[in-house]
Amino acid sequence: MTETRQDGFLGGRLRIVQPRRGYRAGADAVMLAAACAAMPGQAVLELGCGAGVASLCLGWRVPGLRLVGIERQPDYADLARANAAANGIALTVLTGDLADPPALLRKASFDHVIANPPFFLGGTAAPDAGRAAARREATSLALWMDAGLRRLRPGGALTVIQRVDRLDGLLAALSGRAGGVVILPLAARAGRDAGRVLLVAQKGSRSPLRLLAPLVLHEGPAHLRDGDDLSPAAQAVLRDGRPITALFAKVS
Amino acid sequence: MTETRQDGFLGGRLRIVQPRRGYRAGADAVMLAAACAAMPGQAVLELGCGAGVASLCLGWRVPGLRLVGIERQPDYADLARANAAANGIALTVLTGDLADPPALLRKASFDHVIANPPFFLGGTAAPDAGRAAARREATSLALWMDAGLRRLRPGGALTVIQRVDRLDGLLAALSGRAGGVVILPLAARAGRDAGRVLLVAQKGSRSPLRLLAPLVLHEGPAHLRDGDDLSPAAQAVLRDGRPITALFAKVS
Repeated sequence: MTETRQDGFLGGRLRIVQPRRGYRAGADAVMLAAACAAMPGQAVLELGCGAGVASLCLGWRVPGLRLVGIERQPDYADLARANAAANGIALTVLTGDLADPPALLRKASFDHVIANPPFFLGGTAAPDAGRAAARREATSLALWMDAGLRRLRPGGALTVIQRVDRLDGLLAALSGRAGGVVILPLAARAGRDAGRVLLVAQKGSRSPLRLLAPLVLHEGPAHLRDGDDLSPAAQAVLRDGRPITALFAKVS
Repeated sequence: MTETRQDGFLGGRLRIVQPRRGYRAGADAVMLAAACAAMPGQAVLELGCGAGVASLCLGWRVPGLRLVGIERQPDYADLARANAAANGIALTVLTGDLADPPALLRKASFDHVIANPPFFLGGTAAPDAGRAAARREATSLALWMDAGLRRLRPGGALTVIQRVDRLDGLLAALSGRAGGVVILPLAARAGRDAGRVLLVAQKGSRSPLRLLAPLVLHEGPAHLRDGDDLSPAAQAVLRDGRPITALFAKVS
């Protein structure tokens, strides 16, 4: 693997080794963990766990989880295992492909599945992009959602963070298979468009969709000064590891 | 028709006769008109125009529109014609069914289509409701969206107001046929779930979906005093007939 470095998460409570370049987990992974209503003793699967940041943030907050991550890239999977060990959190990392999961995983069922599907899917095709790339991306997102729904027990919750422009793709992938959808827009500043959405859905539920008030990440109308301008709500999640309870649907 | 009465809209600038009971247009219709970016000289179709409130609010704000409404119930269609005449706004009202539009309409194409599809569709079936009713409602919503998209010119804009829990149905109905979706959540109070969404989409566009910051309708955390607690943003729309320009996509 390329050069790595250690980053602090949750105000330094978690120490995570990640590659210096390439895919690096950040605030999205922490937000994802904060959106998952897992209770002690439950089983949680993270799809594409990378270096393990989301699962480890969740394991830090909720004791006694049975945490499993699946990661296609062996070097990231190894990092996740090392990060789990270094932080004293039990996380089982399987190396494998979502589209063809290891037999061990295919027999398991989970109370929660969490995922931060990659925003640019479908390989490194040149930005001829356009329709073909968009279709490939939609297919890949649907595949991630399908893999997650298959691994959930009935009534289990799927929690996803995603770029806001994939909201239609997310909802389409859930159609007829999950309900009780709760959407939390994440906006950089008050009054701005949402940049991301956190979405929770319950497998097999027919409860109505809800659209929550946005979580605003930064104070003030623009980046006016150097340093920290995180909103209190964002600080609670990113620095203190607090859950976003507004997203916690009643999981049956 | 049953007993009617006259209501003021846009701070009394429009006088609208509506039935005292049964379906009565209110703030939703005014919001719908405010979300439509029609320019003078353009052609606008309202699906299910009822007594004409949305079309007449739009006609009041934008001069020189070619406004057409289609309404299935003849008594509402007559009210819309009378309301248009009484307010001095040119509105052509066709009596007919969306699923089988009059020949005159089938040959026409519009720059804008606006709609406030009924929230409880599928007739007066008892609230055995459940899956069958939900499916019927979804079908009806898809039918409204399809009827709207068919009547739009390429690049034309569809503007819809709908209960927030139908957001997935709206997006599904647009999939592959319209893009550049802009969603404005409408929330009763700051921090509350959205109750409605205003959604604008452009026929044939592939621009990414946007989720705007909510428009908050009332000031304060709860209804604390009698009388008017409309937010300045809501007052601008409901009292002064101002447009919601944040929703105005660039229509090609």
